[in-house]
Amino acid sequence: LHDFGTLGTIQGVESEGDLPIKNWTLGSWEEGAYKISGQMLAETIQTGHHACHACTIRCGKEAKVTVGPYKGAIGHAPEYETGAAFGSLILNDNLEIIAACNDLCNRYGMDTIEAGSTIAMAIEAYENGLLTKRDTEGIELKWGIKEELLEILKKMANNKVGIGRLLAQGVKRAADEIGGIAPEFAIQSKGQAFAMHDPRAYTTMVADYATCNRGGCHLECLGYFSEGGAYSAKCVDFTKPSEPHGYENKGEYAVRLMNFMTVFNSLGLCKFIMLGQITPEMASQWINAATGWNLTGKDVELAGDRLFNIKRMYNNRLGLSRKDDVLPQRMLLHDRQTGAAAGSLPYYSRIMKDLYDYRKWNAEGIITEEKKKELGLDTL
Amino acid sequence: LHDFGTLGTIQGVESEGDLPIKNWTLGSWEEGAYKISGQMLAETIQTGHHACHACTIRCGKEAKVTVGPYKGAIGHAPEYETGAAFGSLILNDNLEIIAACNDLCNRYGMDTIEAGSTIAMAIEAYENGLLTKRDTEGIELKWGIKEELLEILKKMANNKVGIGRLLAQGVKRAADEIGGIAPEFAIQSKGQAFAMHDPRAYTTMVADYATCNRGGCHLECLGYFSEGGAYSAKCVDFTKPSEPHGYENKGEYAVRLMNFMTVFNSLGLCKFIMLGQITPEMASQWINAATGWNLTGKDVELAGDRLFNIKRMYNNRLGLSRKDDVLPQRMLLHDRQTGAAAGSLPYYSRIMKDLYDYRKWNAEGIITEEKKKELGLDTL
Repeated sequence: LHDFGTLGTIQGVESEGDLPIKNWTLGSWEEGAYKISGQMLAETIQTGHHACHACTIRCGKEAKVTVGPYKGAIGHAPEYETGAAFGSLILNDNLEIIAACNDLCNRYGMDTIEAGSTIAMAIEAYENGLLTKRDTEGIELKWGIKEELLEILKKMANNKVGIGRLLAQGVKRAADEIGGIAPEFAIQSKGQAFAMHDPRAYTTMVADYATCNRGGCHLECLGYFSEGGAYSAKCVDFTKPSEPHGYENKGEYAVRLMNFMTVFNSLGLCKFIMLGQITPEMASQWINAATGWNLTGKDVELAGDRLFNIKRMYNNRLGLSRKDDVLPQRMLLHDRQTGAAAGSLPYYSRIMKDLYDYRKWNAEGIITEEKKKELGLDTL
Repeated sequence: LHDFGTLGTIQGVESEGDLPIKNWTLGSWEEGAYKISGQMLAETIQTGHHACHACTIRCGKEAKVTVGPYKGAIGHAPEYETGAAFGSLILNDNLEIIAACNDLCNRYGMDTIEAGSTIAMAIEAYENGLLTKRDTEGIELKWGIKEELLEILKKMANNKVGIGRLLAQGVKRAADEIGGIAPEFAIQSKGQAFAMHDPRAYTTMVADYATCNRGGCHLECLGYFSEGGAYSAKCVDFTKPSEPHGYENKGEYAVRLMNFMTVFNSLGLCKFIMLGQITPEMASQWINAATGWNLTGKDVELAGDRLFNIKRMYNNRLGLSRKDDVLPQRMLLHDRQTGAAAGSLPYYSRIMKDLYDYRKWNAEGIITEEKKKELGLDTL
């Protein structure tokens, strides 16, 4: 992480079948992943490091943009998620373009995951004749586009008319507006584009993307992180077997990780310290040191459970329920033919039922009164 | 079938876990099924038989209505689907009320499956506070309602205002209009209420309900019929093992049955002659005898494949694709605790992928050019 940043993981992620390639349809892209890797970044356009206050990891990298309107500018270099969203997802193997896209998104205040996912969807819609050159204002929306990405991002940022207005809505709304089979190409849940980790590679992410309170988020659960071997589930007292592409015990596994992450996110803690195999007990000691409280590890897990479920109750009140805990069909039915997760099609029913039971949610995905009492939330 | 009509199967269907009970949430209802059975009908209000021209089966029954506005009238007695839709689905164990509902629907020209399913959905919506007594114009919408069913059906038939207008839209649209979690209770696909056979009991029906061209239809595929033992899949040359609650070979199994049924439906043939283990070869001989053609059994299967896929292409043109080949979450995540199919949660991904591959549909559920050529449909 210090040497190559999170983008330094992209070749490893590719080799595990976890990297989204060509809008989640392909299973391997070895050469491409090498070309856009953090290792390549370090050898080419990287100009330095940056870090949060007092951090010894210093995962942040800086790069000099060499193409596009901000040529010559020095800014944050792409992280893993951005490298995948503007790289493998659209088969663009040009690292400098990715760096320029990242810089543009940072300046415009746009999310790189959502932006890249929306463009990938639009490419498939174009390929299927649902968008024409007239709709795209002359842009050939094809796999592997490079400079065109910068043009589209600028149009999205100034989203008053045309293709810019269309795509600035994000992947779900844009696909719905395009209509026809375009929603097939919108890889999202609850309106948020998936992070760049594949639930067919690490099936804990099925439970995560389907039930995360804000949609296709990878920060509410480190399932991909844990199943990939970087964090031991034993830290959260989870000791049942969990085969990466399987379904046994996945629901419970995901819940343990989600509950702990909910506390981590609330405290603003960095996910990478998890590599030090952090337990809820350790987190409780930090909280106690800062506050003078007297929490245990169990208290921390309970707090996470409460936090997660309060958000769920909020969503429930807005009308969300089990019917919204769904994944795009591509995640369930498209068995990529190559890569380490080739052929994996998640057993959605079992994974989700396991999660519902462990969460003590009822059949409609609503928290049971029993569970509310257990969490002291029965007055809400 | 001659003695008790199709309603005579309801106890057997219940014992197999195939009967929808309390809007598809329960797994057994032994006493209720007995009370509304064809056997009970024969002992009570049945007045005679009726039959299609020259039929020796004579599965139709007549009954004297003893309640409601048409008291005393003699009409068609409820068939199995109607008995389930106005009986087990809403926990109404009163056979006379079911007969009266059937009679009302016949006179009004309303589909009994869709009407019963819509009322069952509305009961759950009422139970969950999504409909109030004010919405229902004073009707207590509860499980086991009886006379109230007749009142609601009349309002639905005169569908200008209020609860009648709401429910007359059918289960999907009514649930969408009610909003909130009401779509959880709408057991349908592509806008059509499921027939009264449970895809958790006979998982071939997963493939059927998800891909049938007109939605949750049981006449496009006799999966429940075949897996229940009444028709041998060997008749359509299907010899691979298929465990009722399993997923292996289900896609192919469903396709074989669907293709043959598509021909049957086009010819207007009765499904019950299938009990005589009718093969495509036999059907080809009937067609040849009537037309002077010279078809083989293989030709008949090919005709079915063509017919099914032409309808699919029509649907595709209207924007339907894989994203529409879905089942309600209840079918995937609700593992009924009792009955012969208790605990069964279909492996949707595998069943569907198997079907897509066997159909030679692409990943978006569109017929491949290769398959179109094979069927001689490449000019369409």
